[in-house]
Amino acid sequence: MAETLKNLTTIIKERRTADPALSYVAKLFSKGREKIAQKVGEEATETVIAAVSGSPEQLTGEAADLLFHLLILLEERGVPFDDVLAELDRREGLSGLAEKASRPQ
Amino acid sequence: MAETLKNLTTIIKERRTADPALSYVAKLFSKGREKIAQKVGEEATETVIAAVSGSPEQLTGEAADLLFHLLILLEERGVPFDDVLAELDRREGLSGLAEKASRPQ
Amino acid sequence: MAETLKNLTTIIKERRTADPALSYVAKLFSKGREKIAQKVGEEATETVIAAVSGSPEQLTGEAADLLFHLLILLEERGVPFDDVLAELDRREGLSGLAEKASRPQ
Amino acid sequence: MAETLKNLTTIIKERRTADPALSYVAKLFSKGREKIAQKVGEEATETVIAAVSGSPEQLTGEAADLLFHLLILLEERGVPFDDVLAELDRREGLSGLAEKASRPQ
Repeated sequence: MAETLKNLTTIIKERRTADPALSYVAKLFSKGREKIAQKVGEEATETVIAAVSGSPEQLTGEAADLLFHLLILLEERGVPFDDVLAELDRREGLSGLAEKASRPQ
Repeated sequence: MAETLKNLTTIIKERRTADPALSYVAKLFSKGREKIAQKVGEEATETVIAAVSGSPEQLTGEAADLLFHLLILLEERGVPFDDVLAELDRREGLSGLAEKASRPQ
Repeated sequence: MAETLKNLTTIIKERRTADPALSYVAKLFSKGREKIAQKVGEEATETVIAAVSGSPEQLTGEAADLLFHLLILLEERGVPFDDVLAELDRREGLSGLAEKASRPQ
Repeated sequence: MAETLKNLTTIIKERRTADPALSYVAKLFSKGREKIAQKVGEEATETVIAAVSGSPEQLTGEAADLLFHLLILLEERGVPFDDVLAELDRREGLSGLAEKASRPQ
C-alpha cells in the first residue's frame, strides 16, 4: 500500500513539468487549478454512481481515478499527501481517545 | 504512509459493527449505501471549493475527510482498498509502457 | 421565464428520439441514465467552481448547462418538470405558513 | 411554470436580509458564498443518487432542492435568473440553426 501512493506522488511531481503533448499529468497542470478541481468533482460523481448502481470492478476503477486526480490537485496546491495522512492520524488519535472516554468503567 | 491507510481500513472494518450511538462509522453504515455515497459527494465538493478558494490547511482537512469517507464507501461495497491500489499500479505500468513507446528512437 | 423552460422541455422530449449523430440530446439519451446523471454532477461541479472563483458570465453559462442537463435527467426518469415546480410551490406554502406561525402576535 | 420560479426569486431576494434565526434563506446567506456553493454541490449529489437508484418522488424532491439552492447561489453572486434563461434561449437558437444547417437539402 505504501509503495503505490508514494510512487504515484513522485511520478506526478516529475510529470508536472513534462511535455503536455506526451503526458496526461502535464496536460492537466497546463490547464490550471480550476480544471484539475473540476476533474476531482467529476471522478467523485462517477465514484458515487458506481457505488450505488455499478459493479465492484467499476467502483474500483472510479475510486482509482478519484484518488489519482486528488493527488494531482494536492500537488497543484503544494499540499504534501503526507500532510493529509498526518491529519487522518491526528483525528484517529482524537477519536480513539473519545471512544475510550465513552467506555463504561 | 503505509501505516495510516492500513490502520484506517482496519479500524473502519472493526467499527462497522460497533454501536451506532458511540461510533460515527457505525452510524454511517446503519444509514446505508446511498447515505455513504452522498457523504463522498459532499466531501468532494468541499475539497473542490477548498482547492480553488481555501487555504492549504483547509484543503488538507477536506482531502482527509474525502479519503476517510471513500474508504468507508469501499468497505460498504466490499471492495478492498488494495484492489484500488493494484488498479493504480496496473495503469501506471501501462502508462509507463505508453510513454516509452512514444519516445523517439 | 415561462417560455424558455417550457420550450426547452418540449425540445428535449422531441429530440430524445432523434438521430444521435445529429442531436446532442439524442446522443446523451443513447448513452443511458448513468451517463446523464454523471453530466448533471459534472455541470454542478463547474457551477460551484464558477460561483466561488469565476466571473458572473461564467456562472451564468454553467448554471445554464446545469439546468439543461437537469431537464434531460428528469425527462429520462419520466419526471415532469411541472412536478418539480409543484413541489417548490408546496414547500413555499409550508414555509410561508411556518413564517406566519413564528411571527409575534 | 413562470409563476413558481419568478415568485421564488422574489422571495429569496426578500429573505436575504431577514433574521437568520427565522429564515433558512437568511441563515444560508449569513454563512457566505462557499457554504451556499457547497449546498448546491450536495443537492446535486443527492439528485444524481436519486436519479440512478431512487423513486420518481425522491428525484422530484432532490431536483426541487437543487433548483432552490441554485437560485440562492445566483442571487448571492448577483446573477439574475433571467440571464440564465436568456443564455438557454441563445444556445437553443444557435442549436436550431446548427440543426437546420445539417439537414439534407
